[in-house]
Amino acid sequence: MSNSFGRLFRITTFGESHGKAVGVVIDGCPARINIDLTIVQQWLDRRRPGQNDRLTSARRELDRVECLSGIVNDTTIGSPITLMVGNIDQRPSDYQPTVLRPSHADYTYLGKYGLMPPSGGGRASARETVGRVAAAGIAQQVLQTLVPELEFVSWIDSVQNVTCSLTADQLASLNIKQLSANPIPCPDADKAQQMVEVIEQARQDGDTVGGCIALLVRNCPVGLGEPVFDKLEARLAQAMLSVPAVKGFEIGSGFRGTTMRGSQHNDGFAVADDRTITTTSNHSGGVQGGISNGADIYLRVACKPVSTIFQQQQTVDKDGQSVTFKPRGRHDPCVLPRAVVIIEAMAVLVLLDNFLLSRKSNA
Amino acid sequence: MSNSFGRLFRITTFGESHGKAVGVVIDGCPARINIDLTIVQQWLDRRRPGQNDRLTSARRELDRVECLSGIVNDTTIGSPITLMVGNIDQRPSDYQPTVLRPSHADYTYLGKYGLMPPSGGGRASARETVGRVAAAGIAQQVLQTLVPELEFVSWIDSVQNVTCSLTADQLASLNIKQLSANPIPCPDADKAQQMVEVIEQARQDGDTVGGCIALLVRNCPVGLGEPVFDKLEARLAQAMLSVPAVKGFEIGSGFRGTTMRGSQHNDGFAVADDRTITTTSNHSGGVQGGISNGADIYLRVACKPVSTIFQQQQTVDKDGQSVTFKPRGRHDPCVLPRAVVIIEAMAVLVLLDNFLLSRKSNA
Amino acid sequence: MSNSFGRLFRITTFGESHGKAVGVVIDGCPARINIDLTIVQQWLDRRRPGQNDRLTSARRELDRVECLSGIVNDTTIGSPITLMVGNIDQRPSDYQPTVLRPSHADYTYLGKYGLMPPSGGGRASARETVGRVAAAGIAQQVLQTLVPELEFVSWIDSVQNVTCSLTADQLASLNIKQLSANPIPCPDADKAQQMVEVIEQARQDGDTVGGCIALLVRNCPVGLGEPVFDKLEARLAQAMLSVPAVKGFEIGSGFRGTTMRGSQHNDGFAVADDRTITTTSNHSGGVQGGISNGADIYLRVACKPVSTIFQQQQTVDKDGQSVTFKPRGRHDPCVLPRAVVIIEAMAVLVLLDNFLLSRKSNA
Amino acid sequence: MSNSFGRLFRITTFGESHGKAVGVVIDGCPARINIDLTIVQQWLDRRRPGQNDRLTSARRELDRVECLSGIVNDTTIGSPITLMVGNIDQRPSDYQPTVLRPSHADYTYLGKYGLMPPSGGGRASARETVGRVAAAGIAQQVLQTLVPELEFVSWIDSVQNVTCSLTADQLASLNIKQLSANPIPCPDADKAQQMVEVIEQARQDGDTVGGCIALLVRNCPVGLGEPVFDKLEARLAQAMLSVPAVKGFEIGSGFRGTTMRGSQHNDGFAVADDRTITTTSNHSGGVQGGISNGADIYLRVACKPVSTIFQQQQTVDKDGQSVTFKPRGRHDPCVLPRAVVIIEAMAVLVLLDNFLLSRKSNA
Repeated sequence: MSNSFGRLFRITTFGESHGKAVGVVIDGCPARINIDLTIVQQWLDRRRPGQNDRLTSARRELDRVECLSGIVNDTTIGSPITLMVGNIDQRPSDYQPTVLRPSHADYTYLGKYGLMPPSGGGRASARETVGRVAAAGIAQQVLQTLVPELEFVSWIDSVQNVTCSLTADQLASLNIKQLSANPIPCPDADKAQQMVEVIEQARQDGDTVGGCIALLVRNCPVGLGEPVFDKLEARLAQAMLSVPAVKGFEIGSGFRGTTMRGSQHNDGFAVADDRTITTTSNHSGGVQGGISNGADIYLRVACKPVSTIFQQQQTVDKDGQSVTFKPRGRHDPCVLPRAVVIIEAMAVLVLLDNFLLSRKSNA
Repeated sequence: MSNSFGRLFRITTFGESHGKAVGVVIDGCPARINIDLTIVQQWLDRRRPGQNDRLTSARRELDRVECLSGIVNDTTIGSPITLMVGNIDQRPSDYQPTVLRPSHADYTYLGKYGLMPPSGGGRASARETVGRVAAAGIAQQVLQTLVPELEFVSWIDSVQNVTCSLTADQLASLNIKQLSANPIPCPDADKAQQMVEVIEQARQDGDTVGGCIALLVRNCPVGLGEPVFDKLEARLAQAMLSVPAVKGFEIGSGFRGTTMRGSQHNDGFAVADDRTITTTSNHSGGVQGGISNGADIYLRVACKPVSTIFQQQQTVDKDGQSVTFKPRGRHDPCVLPRAVVIIEAMAVLVLLDNFLLSRKSNA
Repeated sequence: MSNSFGRLFRITTFGESHGKAVGVVIDGCPARINIDLTIVQQWLDRRRPGQNDRLTSARRELDRVECLSGIVNDTTIGSPITLMVGNIDQRPSDYQPTVLRPSHADYTYLGKYGLMPPSGGGRASARETVGRVAAAGIAQQVLQTLVPELEFVSWIDSVQNVTCSLTADQLASLNIKQLSANPIPCPDADKAQQMVEVIEQARQDGDTVGGCIALLVRNCPVGLGEPVFDKLEARLAQAMLSVPAVKGFEIGSGFRGTTMRGSQHNDGFAVADDRTITTTSNHSGGVQGGISNGADIYLRVACKPVSTIFQQQQTVDKDGQSVTFKPRGRHDPCVLPRAVVIIEAMAVLVLLDNFLLSRKSNA
Repeated sequence: MSNSFGRLFRITTFGESHGKAVGVVIDGCPARINIDLTIVQQWLDRRRPGQNDRLTSARRELDRVECLSGIVNDTTIGSPITLMVGNIDQRPSDYQPTVLRPSHADYTYLGKYGLMPPSGGGRASARETVGRVAAAGIAQQVLQTLVPELEFVSWIDSVQNVTCSLTADQLASLNIKQLSANPIPCPDADKAQQMVEVIEQARQDGDTVGGCIALLVRNCPVGLGEPVFDKLEARLAQAMLSVPAVKGFEIGSGFRGTTMRGSQHNDGFAVADDRTITTTSNHSGGVQGGISNGADIYLRVACKPVSTIFQQQQTVDKDGQSVTFKPRGRHDPCVLPRAVVIIEAMAVLVLLDNFLLSRKSNA
């Protein structure tokens, strides 16, 4: 069950990092939605390494998406949509890893499955997220059709100790073009430059850094989410913590809000000129009682530093023998430039699934 | 689907705050487990208000649990277990709330269901968690039978700006008795006293405060959790964000870990004298690749300040008319003393469900 | 997972035959539906024994339904609806059955759970269906609101070798009042009388008989059901085979249709005067490709003779010792008079769930 | 949700009849099972048309299976297994069907999705079952490893009015080799020959015939299945009715059993020489109370005559205009020779899923 996500818009990802292909089957996509596969390709291009050779690993993954089913004449037909990306970077399948790499999934997979993950980490590799991002490339076009005003903006909020200094008001009016102007998707140009330097320094040291990603969902309809176990924030949290390297999640005021008093934190309601009801502040981050209230959904996730460092490390192999270990090859010194699109993809998937559910809940 | 949680040990909670009863149906509990209902009652007693009149609301909720099905001669029989708690505090059902209380679920329920939640907040009330805690009272006894070494410790880590100052090593050896000795379940006696004062001050001001709860799971078997969307931390995050008032979740190094480098953060493996493999540090917080690695699972959740404050607040009613609002009755100035057991309950439910799933994942 | 059914309108039944109560939690009922609990009570009254002392067992089960949650001021609020029926007929729980009764679930429960089902058969008792029928009493009112033209008619089609002789055309125009005029719910008055005699004779012989139940769903909207594993007929088949004593299911031409040629069996399309498209025959039984086509859904289920017979039988006990066994107490000599409402209940539950799913399957 | 089946061994099929490929993703396959892909190919070969040019359509579908993920070095690794079969028989995607073919899914798909199924019927085509059969080719190897004594035998029990005349005892000892010796998989050599003639005659007439398929599962462990909605027979019924053309299902005595009395129908228990408990008859068909009892599981399914007949038929097009319609191309005059393996595949999938579930249900 581990490889599926969503209730009405349900994705199932497949494929290992060094296998033949990675991909996704989407079940429950509404029929009669126009789909442009070049938009799906653009989503995949955003997560591809090699865009900036200093910041991300230089492996070549062309990641050409192929659609095997579910779309006829550029239109969804209500059947499962299968998207596949061939792995150019396949390795001979008889290579058998033996070292328990620090902070990787080698030891836990061995414990769970009784065998080591295959070369490249198998499903524990970030390459698994190709299927998620491709699915989001479809989901976003569905949302574009059904809820055209909905808007997602995501950015790097911090890298190690460098933090974006925009105010909440500046963020609220942030547009996507501002992001793409900078060398790294952080809207604060100075800090973006510093982040690049921090990452570059880590790379030179054979080391890695982490950071935080933030995301806004604007113009969300009122009423998405369920009241108890499937609160919108609960499903967002599951979605985000399911992304490799993510160790934390907060929505609205989050951890910072724990130091406020209720009288500061409460979001009062007011009536706008057009008679719509809005909140006068947004510490709730767009959800109350698990359900969207129409204000911006604001969330942040914490990404740990990448586990693959190019330094000698002391560890053991699968037979319990002490070994020193230093990986070869190319890896990102920082996951954040590529993770932004993955975080956004997960948010898109959660929002669409909840939007479809919300269409069925009322008399 | 919103009211169910878990895959093999699946709970469905029911009941509104001012309805006849609240409770839970548990599906999938293994047969032949001895159950002592007084232990379930003790779980419920831990979440009951009125234990400390200064810190929690003085409402009397006797919360006597009644078992309607699934247990015969103090033994589970493989059938659904139904636990029910009658509401003494019922209100006449013809009372119709109209004010959109700030930061409550009134507006979002109205948007989703087309009607205001009933008196007391209905399912948005923390009273819904009675069913979860009762289910955990069963789940913990199942775990006690199947994985007797497993141990859960949870505590208040901060209230507003007062933070527990124990070191990671002190926390690792913390025992439950230390917690119950203090006036509030924080293991740092000085800070526990200060937390009480912060809460008391808020109460006197008609205001409220938030804070953080931390939880350790010790002696967790290797191999719990699934590799992709159902990572152990992803299901824990969903579970925690589904608790009313929770706005953030982190596991292991969490947000703090984003400022570390990989070389500091990586948890190397070593072999203990008894030939078992362990990690030499635990920044991962007991999970790697979504699966438990045998180290302590360590997590923290952020709870916002309670939304019900005893001050005049500006808001609107459901017809969009501006109103000032000040609630009557009794409410907790701080949710944390009662929320500790709810957080622990959710962890117990997640761990049992994953333990049952983990049995025989391979040939 | 065994005790839940449905995807959007999801019921979870609970309770053993001789436990404190039986009942159901309904999750996913749309909000703002008016509910009359006396209609739910009427559904339960239809399945109650003791209505006709010759045909059904004379046990007194008053089966008063109580609603614990989810309905406020006779209106659904979007929260789980809990319906409970106390068991008057409780037995001391320390009675421990030991005989493996022929064709009961004693042996298989022992094999699965490691213990015998409790007194009265526990969940294997037909008393479990109280929760299903109560849920259908709600579901039917939801359908009445959302699809008022939808109509369910169910009847006894055969008892042992006595078979209702109405033609397909007569059945198509059958109304419910015709059914209630007869001593047993079979629309063929002569055969109804013969069925009564067959059942009465079985009772006198300490024996039991089986038979078939038929059901029509009229005015079903086009488009209910899913194309592959959740075909409407597949979910109906699961629903029907989940009813105790049911051993067979057919839809449309069913087993009889296997002797026809395609040229006879095919249902051509035609245009009615009002420009709607209809079929000129209905061998398909209202479904094509798993999806309703607007024609009457017609299905039949086979019920085996009741296993509890009042004759000496050779069998073994749970320790493998040969025993002769003759039950005491009162049991129905034929399940069909009471099963009609259960079959109808399952159809109502499947149709509502599929109706909710069908809303907005496309853009 | 329509395209997935199973709870722990969960398959998701994809692909349209004239699209690029059909296939399946299997989630939940235990790790460390040896898999021989040539066995999967053999399963696919059994459902391929063109094996017998008189009985099945002469289209060439080479149906070469390709494994994209989840198997490394001929071993399952706990990751999703993706099996794909390219469609050689692809058609240009701009062909737009307009006729509502009698007893096909054209009209219902149009009603549900707002558009006609694509050329070849899309997901309504029997070609969708390629994914199911491929999945069964894996599932059977898992069962072979975990429950090596388990055995499946399936055969054609009737074609139109020709019915296999073997007795229950002869069937119980039937072996698979007997089946493959005959021109059609019916164990009664004379009747097999007559069936061939009936099919051939239908083909010459441009017509089609239906029939019944029977299946035995031998040496099933006691305890598979769940007591209420997921009774083993309920999931088998869903599985079978999800196969295109199936209109009926019965288990054990089925419809015939409705004419028996309880004293004839009851299966008493006895103790064998080796102290195991068995039944002295098997009217139950291997399940009691929804759970396997160790006796042979015996079931039968009814398949209607194929809807594609080569005769002029009166129908309408999607705009409601009357048209006469006669298909071109090649289609089977009888689905049964190819459906046997599909029915067996569904049984294998249900049994494995239930076997895996049964490993988790007890203390």
